[in-house]
Amino acid sequence: MATLLLNADMGESFGPWVMGLDEQVMPYVDLANVACGFHASDPDTMRLTARLAARHDVTVGAHPAYPDLVGFGRRSMACSALEIENLVLYQIGALAAICRAEGARLGYVKPHGALYNDMMRDPDKLAAIMRAVAAFDAELPLMVMATREPTPTRELARREGVTLWFEAFADRAYDGEGRLVSRREPKAVHHDPDVIVDQARRIALGQPLTASDGSELVLEADTLCVHGDNPESIAAVQAIRQALHEIEVST
Amino acid sequence: MATLLLNADMGESFGPWVMGLDEQVMPYVDLANVACGFHASDPDTMRLTARLAARHDVTVGAHPAYPDLVGFGRRSMACSALEIENLVLYQIGALAAICRAEGARLGYVKPHGALYNDMMRDPDKLAAIMRAVAAFDAELPLMVMATREPTPTRELARREGVTLWFEAFADRAYDGEGRLVSRREPKAVHHDPDVIVDQARRIALGQPLTASDGSELVLEADTLCVHGDNPESIAAVQAIRQALHEIEVST
Amino acid sequence: MATLLLNADMGESFGPWVMGLDEQVMPYVDLANVACGFHASDPDTMRLTARLAARHDVTVGAHPAYPDLVGFGRRSMACSALEIENLVLYQIGALAAICRAEGARLGYVKPHGALYNDMMRDPDKLAAIMRAVAAFDAELPLMVMATREPTPTRELARREGVTLWFEAFADRAYDGEGRLVSRREPKAVHHDPDVIVDQARRIALGQPLTASDGSELVLEADTLCVHGDNPESIAAVQAIRQALHEIEVST
Amino acid sequence: MATLLLNADMGESFGPWVMGLDEQVMPYVDLANVACGFHASDPDTMRLTARLAARHDVTVGAHPAYPDLVGFGRRSMACSALEIENLVLYQIGALAAICRAEGARLGYVKPHGALYNDMMRDPDKLAAIMRAVAAFDAELPLMVMATREPTPTRELARREGVTLWFEAFADRAYDGEGRLVSRREPKAVHHDPDVIVDQARRIALGQPLTASDGSELVLEADTLCVHGDNPESIAAVQAIRQALHEIEVST
Repeated sequence: MATLLLNADMGESFGPWVMGLDEQVMPYVDLANVACGFHASDPDTMRLTARLAARHDVTVGAHPAYPDLVGFGRRSMACSALEIENLVLYQIGALAAICRAEGARLGYVKPHGALYNDMMRDPDKLAAIMRAVAAFDAELPLMVMATREPTPTRELARREGVTLWFEAFADRAYDGEGRLVSRREPKAVHHDPDVIVDQARRIALGQPLTASDGSELVLEADTLCVHGDNPESIAAVQAIRQALHEIEVST
Repeated sequence: MATLLLNADMGESFGPWVMGLDEQVMPYVDLANVACGFHASDPDTMRLTARLAARHDVTVGAHPAYPDLVGFGRRSMACSALEIENLVLYQIGALAAICRAEGARLGYVKPHGALYNDMMRDPDKLAAIMRAVAAFDAELPLMVMATREPTPTRELARREGVTLWFEAFADRAYDGEGRLVSRREPKAVHHDPDVIVDQARRIALGQPLTASDGSELVLEADTLCVHGDNPESIAAVQAIRQALHEIEVST
Repeated sequence: MATLLLNADMGESFGPWVMGLDEQVMPYVDLANVACGFHASDPDTMRLTARLAARHDVTVGAHPAYPDLVGFGRRSMACSALEIENLVLYQIGALAAICRAEGARLGYVKPHGALYNDMMRDPDKLAAIMRAVAAFDAELPLMVMATREPTPTRELARREGVTLWFEAFADRAYDGEGRLVSRREPKAVHHDPDVIVDQARRIALGQPLTASDGSELVLEADTLCVHGDNPESIAAVQAIRQALHEIEVST
Repeated sequence: MATLLLNADMGESFGPWVMGLDEQVMPYVDLANVACGFHASDPDTMRLTARLAARHDVTVGAHPAYPDLVGFGRRSMACSALEIENLVLYQIGALAAICRAEGARLGYVKPHGALYNDMMRDPDKLAAIMRAVAAFDAELPLMVMATREPTPTRELARREGVTLWFEAFADRAYDGEGRLVSRREPKAVHHDPDVIVDQARRIALGQPLTASDGSELVLEADTLCVHGDNPESIAAVQAIRQALHEIEVST
């Protein structure tokens, strides 16, 4: 049984503005999604983050986004597929160069925010991102959301020649299709640490979750998205890490 | 005797704004200095420019700059050496990724505008740029200005582990130190095509120019900077290309 | 009978990049829609454009847009109504200050590109823009598109306390609802100068156009949008100006 | 005897990034220097800050800067005097419009960071800023640094038709010329609250400070710059406010 890797957004500071407790969360994750300057970060922040990842032997992922600093890449933009392909390529390359200077491994690509959401909704945009990854390095996995029905995404990836990593969330409710319940809904986000750890354990073991419509949902996931924004979320990461460790030891 | 390569700034369009006659000048140059999004260009423009360069078998050079689009990178900014190192690395990487998607060769680095001028005046900034180049790929030459006394620059390059390409100008007057006469001075820029071609020929043959103080100036140059802004400058490039070709044939 | 004013986008240059033949078109228009730095223009370009408008006694309009320079404000962004209100207010104020320094009249507001389209589709966004205009100066008209059914827009304007100027297009085909036929359709744009001048004349006289579905369409318009991008469009502006002048003289 | 007003930088958050404890420091100051989007802030942050200032009856000052978000306006840029005039005008206007929507008073202009430093060193840049202020509203005071010899600045202001507010610092050491000792020097910044309050009291009473060269320095100041970055600085603001209150009561 494969290990469930933990990924977290990192390097989201910008110029003088600090965001995230990167130093505190880095020791507990496997994968650092590093912002590339379009929604957050800058060359100096990227370099410090790559160095921190290298020190903890954490794999760096490019975390490209729409060009929208003030909106933190959370606002969808009507970019064409070709524009998306090129801006993803640009951002991967920029981070890859900085990783090289720090001896850090650039190991995968995970789109950020609205670009991630748009990619999951629009196969043209997903294909554009896949072309960018394949053009840069077909060995790099692209991280996408684990859903109830991953087959179309898998087929597109096969056609475009990229591999996929599916990610799941321990602190979010899922709907019947296996998509995240919108944050505007009540109960979209789990706050109880026991619920979060239980959901992480179920995903790791391939056990079903209960979707918001009451149906059972089994997600095949390679990685779990965690957060390092505040002390509570870091405590959750540590608890998840411990739970996954116990599973690995016992299996 | 080494061939004098012709380099020109390219890919300086930005979004909907067009600059330069890239399609017309590309067939006549060896090296295309491609803007990387900080003073000009954007991911789409970079991609089109890399494709155009690849089609003409022209080597692409990264043309990094200060982050100043509205000022076109022509205004010096009080960036630290580390900031410069990182922003150069970022820009090289971004362009390298885009070149990879087009099968174009990223073959060298030439800083742009105020960053170029600052690098020639301040060894700390020059060393920072060298560290960026060496960290990305120590095989990539860094293009710097040919001056009367290149030894300190050569020594710094040796220490930082990078190779240099020296560039000279056919359409600019030089002062006694072998620096360009400021554009604010009269006679700083040559407009007569015969004068320009003669200066190109002298540089190619290692023959002395006459500096603005009347002294003889021999510049050891690997490449000559030319321009593709307007029909006149393209005619000058063609004439220089022809003159260099005659030298090669006759030697 | 009210005069039909001619409006054109101006001040769309950015830093070193030139766009539009502002000097050539300014003498023939009444209203200059001046970009405010978010999709085009910069403080220096705005100042020169305000000066040019003042010299020709042309009224300046603020032409605010989404914050998307590289996309020229043509890509819709998922901004909230409050974000739109504030970014419109910011841009109006910036241009108003620059007009003041040149003795130019800031006389109206016309949103640009995707923001204009979104405003015509989404009453929440339209109301947000109206609130920005009213907060700045309730005397300034907001320019919106003349459609077959302007009543809802008029009612919203009454509630928000702003006045409206409706604009029509002489060089674009209209559909049955009185909306512009998409540029992706054939025959969306008129190129024949006679057709363009005839459409301008009909709009000025309140005569019906023939919509793309064959129905008659009467547009009540205060102003006609014209273009100053190239010599052909400037010739069209001159022909329209002449036609409107003949109507005024004969009535 | 005139009251010494307290001014502090505010509205320095940007998009999702928070900076400064504006809510906590606003009740204790008279003047809020509000960033205008070039080095910090954005239209939404500016609006919230204007609202907060209005609620506390604090006068808003425009805090314009070089266009350098990532560098927070702290890096000098080789902008021309005309570029500076126009970018200051743009920023004042943008903030003024937002203040109008909140019923806040835009009452003065204080350049930020490197622009402030450059203005104090270069009379051409100072004059450019004065022209921007005068063009917008000649009633708005421009805040400049109190030095040992303010006469040249006063004469320039008279010529350009603007009034001045001189500001002093309670937590910084001064050199013999009445300029701030560089932060790179030891003892440049006072940390002892008693020293800070004593310096504030001396400035308020027109009593001499001891400059770093041992000479006596009397600064004529209209306002004192304070900080709201952290709990310590807010405690210092409160202590200064109390000390100034006691002086006012006793005189």
